[in-house]
Amino acid sequence: MVYTLSSTPRQDGFYMPAEFAPHKQTWMLWPERPDNWRLGAKPAQKAFVAVAKAIAQFEPVVMGVNQRQFLNARAMLPPQIRVVEISNNDSWMRDVGPTFVVNGQGTVRLVDWMFNAWGGLREGLYFPWDLDDLVPRKVAEIEGIDRYAAPLVLEGGSIHVDGEGTLLTTEQCLLNPNRNPELSKEEIETYLKEYTGAECILWLGEGVYNDETNGHVDNLACFLRPGVVALTWTDDHNDPQYPISQDAYDRLRRFRDVKGRSLEVVKIHQPNPIRITAEEAEGVDAVEGTLPRQAGDRMAASYINFYFCNGGVVVPTFDDPHDQLALETLQRCLPERRVVGVSAREILLGGGNIHCITQQQPLGG
Amino acid sequence: MVYTLSSTPRQDGFYMPAEFAPHKQTWMLWPERPDNWRLGAKPAQKAFVAVAKAIAQFEPVVMGVNQRQFLNARAMLPPQIRVVEISNNDSWMRDVGPTFVVNGQGTVRLVDWMFNAWGGLREGLYFPWDLDDLVPRKVAEIEGIDRYAAPLVLEGGSIHVDGEGTLLTTEQCLLNPNRNPELSKEEIETYLKEYTGAECILWLGEGVYNDETNGHVDNLACFLRPGVVALTWTDDHNDPQYPISQDAYDRLRRFRDVKGRSLEVVKIHQPNPIRITAEEAEGVDAVEGTLPRQAGDRMAASYINFYFCNGGVVVPTFDDPHDQLALETLQRCLPERRVVGVSAREILLGGGNIHCITQQQPLGG
Repeated sequence: MVYTLSSTPRQDGFYMPAEFAPHKQTWMLWPERPDNWRLGAKPAQKAFVAVAKAIAQFEPVVMGVNQRQFLNARAMLPPQIRVVEISNNDSWMRDVGPTFVVNGQGTVRLVDWMFNAWGGLREGLYFPWDLDDLVPRKVAEIEGIDRYAAPLVLEGGSIHVDGEGTLLTTEQCLLNPNRNPELSKEEIETYLKEYTGAECILWLGEGVYNDETNGHVDNLACFLRPGVVALTWTDDHNDPQYPISQDAYDRLRRFRDVKGRSLEVVKIHQPNPIRITAEEAEGVDAVEGTLPRQAGDRMAASYINFYFCNGGVVVPTFDDPHDQLALETLQRCLPERRVVGVSAREILLGGGNIHCITQQQPLGG
Repeated sequence: MVYTLSSTPRQDGFYMPAEFAPHKQTWMLWPERPDNWRLGAKPAQKAFVAVAKAIAQFEPVVMGVNQRQFLNARAMLPPQIRVVEISNNDSWMRDVGPTFVVNGQGTVRLVDWMFNAWGGLREGLYFPWDLDDLVPRKVAEIEGIDRYAAPLVLEGGSIHVDGEGTLLTTEQCLLNPNRNPELSKEEIETYLKEYTGAECILWLGEGVYNDETNGHVDNLACFLRPGVVALTWTDDHNDPQYPISQDAYDRLRRFRDVKGRSLEVVKIHQPNPIRITAEEAEGVDAVEGTLPRQAGDRMAASYINFYFCNGGVVVPTFDDPHDQLALETLQRCLPERRVVGVSAREILLGGGNIHCITQQQPLGG
């Protein structure tokens, strides 16, 4: 039974739970396009396998693949990770995938946002994105759960919720004219509330410096629990990230969440600037219409792009002196979870990180 | 958890239940190839929808589709029928799909036979068949169940079981040198026993006249219950089907099943000869390497190619004077089920019928 509902989650008593609420499983998509992932995506595939294995220690993982990669993905992944056909244009399950919603009475549904490849025909990262846009429907069909079609261009990485009614996002992305130019901020807030069940929308300004998603919040800041937000940080006043993080910090300290609480902010110092090497850039196919990967470009590396799973946290590491502090800080803030680092440079080279390639399916309870 | 097991179902206490045992759901594949299905497969798609709807009255149905047909299939099928991506070369789920096995203790697994498109490079019906051959693995991944890889070329339509240890098949197909030329009859019997759990293999001779599957049993004869077999029949001694059905009848009457019972045989008179019209033949793309559909060719029409589902039986009809008698006979033999006829000429034009396009997944109980 898979119905497309014409109501909204809020109308039906459904809401998006926090990522740190219990999951049924994690969804991912398999990387393959050689115009985004170097060397025919082989290093990225190994990195995705490492992420999938790290998560599979904590909960089931389902990997969606294009048909032509089915056997390769099956061979590279351990048997406890299911591999199912879900055609896609690239592997960003956070952004192309569904947002699951629950009603607290055992029923799970999903929200299928509109997708335009992070900016549409003029500013999007590739064309076409027709298969990406069908991913939520296909997840709904595999799971046999009902679907809300939201009339809003939105990627999952552009919102975070605390599960109690507070939603965190950025103006740079959600108010960008390359997403929903016909909608006012108030209309966008209304849609966010209707489709996530949130009641309080907190607006940060810009996302991480040079983030090609137009500043997704999931690379900048995230809830560690209701009332506590982790923020990517730098102490280097000359770094272009400094004013962005400082502005985010100032806003976060001024916010009151849906319960009227002020927010505690945990700063996680970013890694040192990471740039694409000439060798890495040369490994990517040059295709017109796809964002090029150029040697020397600074990448939007952030430890905030980590993923909560049942009893665990899977955190990107960069072979950087700040890795250890990031892992220790998160472990101290989340003593009930086991913090696991996964080397993520090859994911970063594709334009995102661990949070961008995962999507949690909550338990219905 | 999807493991490929190196043991056999028999070794692990698993067996193939009869089709008339309770199902969890029915699997189908969506037709599309224009070199087999006329008019871009549109009439066939309508017929498949009718079959799927008929089954969905009784139990859940899952339709596997190639990526490019996802939205069309979704639009043509009612919402209670799930549509999932399962790439395939054609739509014969009975033959390319898995054979499910159970252990009577709640666990379901599946057997993944080798597939060579009904005869391999020289005599097969099309090339390639690489996607067909992966269908059972993909079903296993979607369902999260373990898989036995059987080292035997076999299509699901070439065997029927009574669920008590008796298996019915045909020499024309299973002993055909275009299937397993390196294996003796005894070796084939051993594999059948190991992978279906059957203990008693009953060999009919030829299948239905002009059946392009090399005589699949599922168009000729099937169990109605343990000890009772339905057989396609003709009273016309000049019909080429007559000696085939007479030979099958004689063998069936001589057989003893696994329990030592003689078999009751219910004759179901076939429809009058059905031939491909010029208009029908013209609607099929001519592609070298695919079996052509030629005007005047007689098709292997048989009411036996019906499908059991929970509380129902879905039977092909041909707008033929024998339709009513076939439906009445089956209804009389199966009073506990509701017999439903579905007009099936468009499926027959593709080379099979309702049983050929369905595959039951038993309940684990």
